Amino acid sequence: MRLSNRILEGDKRAAARLMTLVENNDPCAKDELKKLYQHTGKAHVIGITGPPGTGKSTLVDKLALEYRKKGKSVGIIAVDPTSPFTGGAFLGDRIRMSDVAMDPDVFIRSMGTRQKLGGLAKGTNDFIRILDAYGKDIILVETVGAGQSEVDIVKTAHTTIIVEIPGMGDDIQAVKAGILEIGDIFVVNKADREGVERVVRELQTMLEMSHPHDCEDCWKPPIIKTMARDGDGIGDVASQTVEHMDFLRKTGRFEEEMKKRARTEFLEIVRESLSEYLLDKMLDQGELDELVSKILAREIDPYTASEGLLARLEK
Amino acid sequence: MRLSNRILEGDKRAAARLMTLVENNDPCAKDELKKLYQHTGKAHVIGITGPPGTGKSTLVDKLALEYRKKGKSVGIIAVDPTSPFTGGAFLGDRIRMSDVAMDPDVFIRSMGTRQKLGGLAKGTNDFIRILDAYGKDIILVETVGAGQSEVDIVKTAHTTIIVEIPGMGDDIQAVKAGILEIGDIFVVNKADREGVERVVRELQTMLEMSHPHDCEDCWKPPIIKTMARDGDGIGDVASQTVEHMDFLRKTGRFEEEMKKRARTEFLEIVRESLSEYLLDKMLDQGELDELVSKILAREIDPYTASEGLLARLEK
Repeated sequence: MRLSNRILEGDKRAAARLMTLVENNDPCAKDELKKLYQHTGKAHVIGITGPPGTGKSTLVDKLALEYRKKGKSVGIIAVDPTSPFTGGAFLGDRIRMSDVAMDPDVFIRSMGTRQKLGGLAKGTNDFIRILDAYGKDIILVETVGAGQSEVDIVKTAHTTIIVEIPGMGDDIQAVKAGILEIGDIFVVNKADREGVERVVRELQTMLEMSHPHDCEDCWKPPIIKTMARDGDGIGDVASQTVEHMDFLRKTGRFEEEMKKRARTEFLEIVRESLSEYLLDKMLDQGELDELVSKILAREIDPYTASEGLLARLEK
Repeated sequence: MRLSNRILEGDKRAAARLMTLVENNDPCAKDELKKLYQHTGKAHVIGITGPPGTGKSTLVDKLALEYRKKGKSVGIIAVDPTSPFTGGAFLGDRIRMSDVAMDPDVFIRSMGTRQKLGGLAKGTNDFIRILDAYGKDIILVETVGAGQSEVDIVKTAHTTIIVEIPGMGDDIQAVKAGILEIGDIFVVNKADREGVERVVRELQTMLEMSHPHDCEDCWKPPIIKTMARDGDGIGDVASQTVEHMDFLRKTGRFEEEMKKRARTEFLEIVRESLSEYLLDKMLDQGELDELVSKILAREIDPYTASEGLLARLEK
């Protein structure tokens, strides 16, 4: 039986296998993803990001536990774009520390990070689709750090949780300005540490500045204090994710946003295959070699050379 | 006078201005880069990367000082892909700590990291071209961390220096396996720390494993102990970069590699402009909306929809 069918029947190993194919850029993966596509769009995808050392993994684990208590099945995708070389070791640690790894209704997978730049976001998206078709109600996507790649990954989520902790110094203040735009829920973890109220207050001030108008159908990101290790505040975070999804659906934002994303993804796919196809037809190897030689000799710059090709097409 | 002409005449502010245009994706930047292209290809581009906290900035600074002593002009590009939100603050710190910032023949610039994924490597490449045309003999590209984006950035360099320090624990062991392939020179900084010999030995063993054959025209990456803060070992690092460039030129590797890169860059530019052009011609807004609706309704998957468009083109 093909992988996609096995996944739809709930075969965990088939899901893991297809993820490996995706990671290896195996051409077979695309056919399976095509078959799965019509069975996707049901899961609530939640992104969790923030600086290293804020306890994201623990938070994700406790959140998973919380959703399980409510009878939801959970998938966890842990992405570490800052270390392309850690590979399997990362997942090992991740699972060792986990409360939910032994739960058959929780699927944990790390995203292999030997992917090309850009491929990481695409790969994460494919992983989400697989878990979605496989039937997970909640998919938690955890990324380490708060860099651009994480921001891109988080954009595949419906709800984004930003994790901060007290006492990270001034650097974090600068970070906050940028992440305000992408955060739907703010968590101040390790709330037993000194300075927690200051972090909450600062976040509040910054959020007020960035959401100055009191509009009725605007989402006002809550700020939640947690001590993830002890489970404190986790229930609150979980219910806020549910509220956020309700908000998205009620206001029509969900539909709007999904439409925008489907359009972007489709155009990207078309662009990619179109250019591969045409490049093949338009440019024979001899001509390509000649152009590259001229570029190397600085007789022409690559932009002008490309424009020359395009002009030919227009005729 | 246009920016490119001013840059060629050695106008520092014009170079900085064009970099800002590149960062802002200003359409004017391309024209200026085109004009500069024929004046590039002269600088020696040296990438410096490694985990955070290894003292890369200090090393870069002392290296710049060393090249200046030898009468070379130097450009420094500091890229921090892990923090898209730090912006100007990073450069401020960078310059405050610098020995060479006040030297008029040293140009320091941080790479604004609000760039899109992938755009960071392209932006760095453009910055390098600007400094190259501006007349810098040596261009040092410093990236924080050792993630995939850094690897991509480092690929724009001719010579890559990997910085390690003693006492970073087991995590770094895993990292090493991946960076062996991209390192031309290995620096063990903070060499007064305990465990320095162990790091050197481990690097040696791993390098021997990855370079098993004693081939005559292979580059054997040197491992150099430094105490960058005191300048210890810096002269050695600088002369190894010169030796590496001599090696590349003597063996024909330089030409070969530049050819490969020019080809890749050119094809990327063609792909990008080609697909924009065609998408515009092939797909009217109404049809696009209709396809996106079908994709959203899960009546068709985006890959199959894209293949349908392509099939039409083949007729």
